[in-house]
Amino acid sequence: MDVEVSTLKNGLRVISDPMPSLETAAVGVWVDTGARHETTAENGISHVLEHMAFKGTKKRSALEIAEVIESVGGHLNAYTSRDQTAYFARILKNDVPLAVDILGDILQHSNFDETEIAREKEVIVQEIGQTFDTPDDIIFDYLQETSYPNQPLGRSILGTAAQVRGFDRAMIASYMKVRYVAPKMVLSGSGAIDHEKLVKLAEDAFGELAITGATGMEPASYRGGEYREERDLEQIHYALSVPGIAYDDYDFYTAQILSGLLGGGMSSRLFQEIRERRGLCYTVFSFASSFADTGTFTVYAGTGENHIGELSHVLTDELLRSIEDIREAEVDRAKAQLKASLLMGLESPASRSEVHARQLLIYGRVLPASEIVEKIDIVTVQDTKRLAGKLFSGVKPTIAALGPLKNLDRFDKIAARFN
Amino acid sequence: MDVEVSTLKNGLRVISDPMPSLETAAVGVWVDTGARHETTAENGISHVLEHMAFKGTKKRSALEIAEVIESVGGHLNAYTSRDQTAYFARILKNDVPLAVDILGDILQHSNFDETEIAREKEVIVQEIGQTFDTPDDIIFDYLQETSYPNQPLGRSILGTAAQVRGFDRAMIASYMKVRYVAPKMVLSGSGAIDHEKLVKLAEDAFGELAITGATGMEPASYRGGEYREERDLEQIHYALSVPGIAYDDYDFYTAQILSGLLGGGMSSRLFQEIRERRGLCYTVFSFASSFADTGTFTVYAGTGENHIGELSHVLTDELLRSIEDIREAEVDRAKAQLKASLLMGLESPASRSEVHARQLLIYGRVLPASEIVEKIDIVTVQDTKRLAGKLFSGVKPTIAALGPLKNLDRFDKIAARFN
Repeated sequence: MDVEVSTLKNGLRVISDPMPSLETAAVGVWVDTGARHETTAENGISHVLEHMAFKGTKKRSALEIAEVIESVGGHLNAYTSRDQTAYFARILKNDVPLAVDILGDILQHSNFDETEIAREKEVIVQEIGQTFDTPDDIIFDYLQETSYPNQPLGRSILGTAAQVRGFDRAMIASYMKVRYVAPKMVLSGSGAIDHEKLVKLAEDAFGELAITGATGMEPASYRGGEYREERDLEQIHYALSVPGIAYDDYDFYTAQILSGLLGGGMSSRLFQEIRERRGLCYTVFSFASSFADTGTFTVYAGTGENHIGELSHVLTDELLRSIEDIREAEVDRAKAQLKASLLMGLESPASRSEVHARQLLIYGRVLPASEIVEKIDIVTVQDTKRLAGKLFSGVKPTIAALGPLKNLDRFDKIAARFN
Repeated sequence: MDVEVSTLKNGLRVISDPMPSLETAAVGVWVDTGARHETTAENGISHVLEHMAFKGTKKRSALEIAEVIESVGGHLNAYTSRDQTAYFARILKNDVPLAVDILGDILQHSNFDETEIAREKEVIVQEIGQTFDTPDDIIFDYLQETSYPNQPLGRSILGTAAQVRGFDRAMIASYMKVRYVAPKMVLSGSGAIDHEKLVKLAEDAFGELAITGATGMEPASYRGGEYREERDLEQIHYALSVPGIAYDDYDFYTAQILSGLLGGGMSSRLFQEIRERRGLCYTVFSFASSFADTGTFTVYAGTGENHIGELSHVLTDELLRSIEDIREAEVDRAKAQLKASLLMGLESPASRSEVHARQLLIYGRVLPASEIVEKIDIVTVQDTKRLAGKLFSGVKPTIAALGPLKNLDRFDKIAARFN
């Protein structure tokens, strides 16, 4: 891996990762800000800002931004997560300079025109409605809110319609000013990319970023509990989570392995027990999410009204069983899966540029694949059982359920099993 | 491009497409059968069969199939579409022989054990429920059904719960026997693949396929009309389609370009007019789908109850406007987008193996990228306007709408504009 990182005078880090066989490139900017950096009054503003960045700069109208990148066959996109905001382009080899120029332009010189803001807020209100209509999407917002109530990490990324409608130009511009500062941003390119050229382009395009801004964030405080919503649906969408582990936790890879063997693939325990042996669901999976100071371990399943009692019981059984009983072969399989995914991800420039940028923001450095493989390899069966014990006993879980819920056990009854 | 195609004695075609820089491979089997090859009584059986192929063979149990591929870090997956069924693996370089062996095993030696069938049918009933709960998924089934009523191409891929529950071992096995025949199947591999070795593996693994089976299918007959369903949702999910063009139509690439400029990206007309100028929606896009004998041109948007009148009107305006007014720059941009997507797709082994297999089943040959680029390049502005005229005038459209619909115009009123 020939990843190179340079830091510009203003503190912006530039990572490049040439893939000599490619004719295309992925390049983007990752910013160390997201919903969890917002105050109560600001909830949703990171995401509004992400939308507004496409709505015109001093030198390009919104239409021109779209046209200039799409005219060369490129795509420009963005997302906001709880801890990061990303803007990225997929382009052909020769269009890297154009992509960097546009990224620099929209992240430093956006106009935030009032008319554009008014219209875009309505677009976001529609986006909020769309999320609400997608049960297996909105359920994770409810789960997060119940896990971390009344604090930034628990709030939704989109915010509410009322909040979104309340933002104005001054609020958006000032949030950007304190959060989009060079040392908290990374420009990452993979594919048909040359490091020296990328650094030069970055110097030209990102010279006007602020150098200092807001620091710190409210530490997360897990609570747990339940969210239930009766909805006229065919399925009950059921998610359960427990406190997990943070990015820099010793058990980071152990948690990935535990999630893999519990709910990661067709051979995983939840898939085998709940879908293959009992036919209770079509979808069941687990995942371990991490943040700087906390994390969650989550399981999701969808099932019909008549099966929810059995499903929620068996799901808990499987989590608890892993405290005492995990086999070597399961751990080996989960490790093989993780390592193969890592290798497959290395073949996609979009995936590489994202992984590197996120690592740089989270760990302050790019982790070589060999180091990750080593960390995966040293995890033992005993480690996974120890972690299962930590995750699934003596904790208060969080449950979110949407659908026809009358056959779902009371929260107390489910929670008691994790005592 | 060094794509090689060999035909085995039994008629199975083997395509390989080495990507020398890769350490992983994608390999799969595409079968020329899907929902449109089913009789009324069989509706849903292609998809049931696709599930049952993972449920145990003479030499491997369902669990062993899952474990053997996941133990080496691989994934095995499948899908059923209206005209094809696919089974594919992503594996590391050295595991290509294993993947081919498993594919051969599940596609020739599945047991279709009655207990497994009974359980898997319940899993599929859950899948049907999940689809029903996802408005922007199920709406396309309603649209298809209304476009092609009472015929195979209009029926859903999943079938109904009652139908799925009615299938037994004999029906599944006999459907497989007549549809999974060597000349109608393609084994396609991309990435760390060697053609000679792949052919040899295929000879060993697929020696017992039948050589002759059912042929022909009921030609599609477009009707049009509307499907409305009042649902308690935040958004109205609205889709409109008109008869489009078949795979081998002269206008195949013209339709892709027209779809690109109308609803393909941020600079497209529908995105600009409906989202950017009017703020009526978050999601709006168009796509042109093709089948052997027919096709549809479809537009989708989601919006709130109060905006649906304006949205559906403007959406039709934009389609009609394209008959008279398309600019050179728009066509150029759509062409650049198509060509860049083609190039980016070439960097993914999964995408390449799928594209090649589908081309071989549809056209009888793999289309070189240079040929596709040429066909895109020769499309003129005049071609796109001519096609818009053909698609959007003198036709009866199909509409599907889900949500709070009281403000949506009557079908007659919307349809009249396409007269």
